Amino acid sequence: MSRTRIHNFSISLDGFATGEPQSLEAPFGHAGQRLHTWMMRTQSWDPDGSDGVDNAYAERHGPGIGAEIMGANKFGPPGWHEDPDWKGWWGPNPPFHTPVFVLTHHTRPPLEMEGGNVFHFLEASPAEALETARAAADGKDVRIGGGATVVRDFLAAGLVDHMHLVQVPIVLGRGVRLWDGLEGVEEAFDVETVASPSGVTHFTFTRKTS
Amino acid sequence: MSRTRIHNFSISLDGFATGEPQSLEAPFGHAGQRLHTWMMRTQSWDPDGSDGVDNAYAERHGPGIGAEIMGANKFGPPGWHEDPDWKGWWGPNPPFHTPVFVLTHHTRPPLEMEGGNVFHFLEASPAEALETARAAADGKDVRIGGGATVVRDFLAAGLVDHMHLVQVPIVLGRGVRLWDGLEGVEEAFDVETVASPSGVTHFTFTRKTS
Ligand SMILES: NC(=O)c1ccc[n+]([C@@H]2O[C@H](COP(=O)([O-])OP(=O)(O)OC[C@H]3O[C@@H](n4cnc5c(N)ncnc54)[C@H](OP(=O)(O)O)[C@@H]3O)[C@@H](O)[C@H]2O)c1
Ligand SMILES: NC(=O)c1ccc[n+]([C@@H]2O[C@H](COP(=O)([O-])OP(=O)(O)OC[C@H]3O[C@@H](n4cnc5c(N)ncnc54)[C@H](OP(=O)(O)O)[C@@H]3O)[C@@H](O)[C@H]2O)c1
Repeated sequence: MSRTRIHNFSISLDGFATGEPQSLEAPFGHAGQRLHTWMMRTQSWDPDGSDGVDNAYAERHGPGIGAEIMGANKFGPPGWHEDPDWKGWWGPNPPFHTPVFVLTHHTRPPLEMEGGNVFHFLEASPAEALETARAAADGKDVRIGGGATVVRDFLAAGLVDHMHLVQVPIVLGRGVRLWDGLEGVEEAFDVETVASPSGVTHFTFTRKTS
Repeated sequence: MSRTRIHNFSISLDGFATGEPQSLEAPFGHAGQRLHTWMMRTQSWDPDGSDGVDNAYAERHGPGIGAEIMGANKFGPPGWHEDPDWKGWWGPNPPFHTPVFVLTHHTRPPLEMEGGNVFHFLEASPAEALETARAAADGKDVRIGGGATVVRDFLAAGLVDHMHLVQVPIVLGRGVRLWDGLEGVEEAFDVETVASPSGVTHFTFTRKTS
């Protein structure tokens, strides 16, 4: 069974998955890199990084994934769609290595890059996008890559099977919140919580088998 | 040194310290008892309860405390001040056993009850209220008892030395949020996080000694 998974999705204590304003210079706004410092200090990111619980979670990002779905604001800064040469933040060989489906109201032709990365741009409901991505994933799982708006929409639509969240002990105060409109979302999941010595808290939400 | 402490203050994943609407029948609104089930299952509350990490935190509520400050909405449901006979939720012998200072715009004469409980009603800034409570605490610590508005105001004013928060893995969606207006509040504290086998997460915020 192909599942829908979320990994390494990082939020502040007050539930923001990004700061503001988002820009080319500061993709996470005033949050800077603070939401992801925990990940950049693991071996998944840095050969000299840690290999403890943070890395155990971090390295689950790739295996078993056959496609990613992301939002327009993860793909680029405000206004990227006015730049025909914008190819994402990640250089010539992005770290996805699968088809990637960018949800956007500004569609454009597919963009093929190195390393098996092909970006497709589509305007579709979460359920439709998932169906498309699943077909492309060739029996593997589909990752919902963020940002907050897209993760929230997939949770609200009941489409997520497994979600790994990382709560960073900072209060951002502003940005885009994950939890808005998700009252009671935990009822469909078994929730497990692990505090890391690094100071972050890992949550896994695994869909209950009914 | 007399410190200002917060204990057992429980919030949802999305940062709500109470649901809505608050009423005589449902003091926590639609949250019901869900924010405090963890505490009701410890020996501090129930002789048959657990004596693990949740109880270790829960039982720190009382020792060393010489006075409490609470908000008007913790003392009673909306409109309590129109009822001259309202004496709080806690029966003839409330669990504070110290002077209690109720911050309210509807002051009334002090209310003396059993067990060393005396409720004083005052309209004052957080700093002024703390000064008054500290004088009454006779060298002991002052507890900020909640609700969310009062805890937030004391944090914003930089008056809190130690805060124990308990995050319950539910998404309430509505109520009164703790974190609003507190961007960067963590910078003044050492933050420690412990995940309990019961499913809740304990955070301690201890003021940095500079
Ligand atoms: N915390 C983390 O772990 C994490 C992970 C990934 C990303 N991020 C950050 O999160 C931020 C982006 O999050 P965000 O919430 O602002 O935006 P987002 O979820 O990346 O994208 C939302 C946008 O995607 C488009 N979109 C979404 N659903 C659509 C649909 N069904 N059909 C057509 N278009 C659709 C819309 O843009 P248009 O109408 O403009 O096309 C919408 O405004 C960035 O700062 C990113 O760096 C954080
Ligand atoms: N989650 C927890 O662990 C926890 C702990 C305690 C309580 N609670 C719950 O939290 C809820 C109450 O929280 P809340 O945020 O609604 O209200 P609250 O913090 O209890 O009280 C706020 C009210 O107190 C009065 N007040 C506050 N500061 C004042 C000042 N400086 N001077 C004069 N009056 C002042 C004002 O009421 P007036 O203008 O009407 O006088 C204000 O609306 C209740 O549901 C309670 O059961 C939860």
